[in-house]
Amino acid sequence: MIATTVTVYVKTGFTEDFIRHTIENHKNTKKEPGNIRFDFLQSKKDPCRFLLYEVFIDEDAILQHKKTTHYNKWKEAVESWMAVPREGVPHDVICPAGEESW
Amino acid sequence: MIATTVTVYVKTGFTEDFIRHTIENHKNTKKEPGNIRFDFLQSKKDPCRFLLYEVFIDEDAILQHKKTTHYNKWKEAVESWMAVPREGVPHDVICPAGEESW
Repeated sequence: MIATTVTVYVKTGFTEDFIRHTIENHKNTKKEPGNIRFDFLQSKKDPCRFLLYEVFIDEDAILQHKKTTHYNKWKEAVESWMAVPREGVPHDVICPAGEESW
Repeated sequence: MIATTVTVYVKTGFTEDFIRHTIENHKNTKKEPGNIRFDFLQSKKDPCRFLLYEVFIDEDAILQHKKTTHYNKWKEAVESWMAVPREGVPHDVICPAGEESW
């Protein structure tokens, strides 16, 4: 399993558009067989800062995700709304141990 | 619900100790009634960088967590192993919407 945290800073005035498009991406990503989690969060201190918490079963599932229409539609739509390039950090999972716990 | 990401950089030579203590904290935190998730991750690119993904039902559940013996034991044990002060970012949850989805 791979858990990637993607931090996104959105330009002021575009947060509502970003939220709408990311909810759509969330809904479709959750249907992918290789996806385990796709949590979408907004910082309490900075409403322009968001976090995507994406957990996929393996590298191949991430590759498949990046080929989907919904991911590419999202990526294209949000590109110009980002205040800085988004930062993705891939992680190995230590806990919960075992896929059945997810 | 509140989802907090805590990024921790551990000094070289202390990662095994940190992992052992954090697994113990994970096990006990999962038993708290107000805890929803407590994922413990290690960066694929930097084995000294960790992420705690902590989801609690509300602010009170976080306060209760901070009063527990296991949290305080962990906090005290890991303090001197951190390369820089840990950074916690509290978030509101946008997706999945509704507590029943967690």
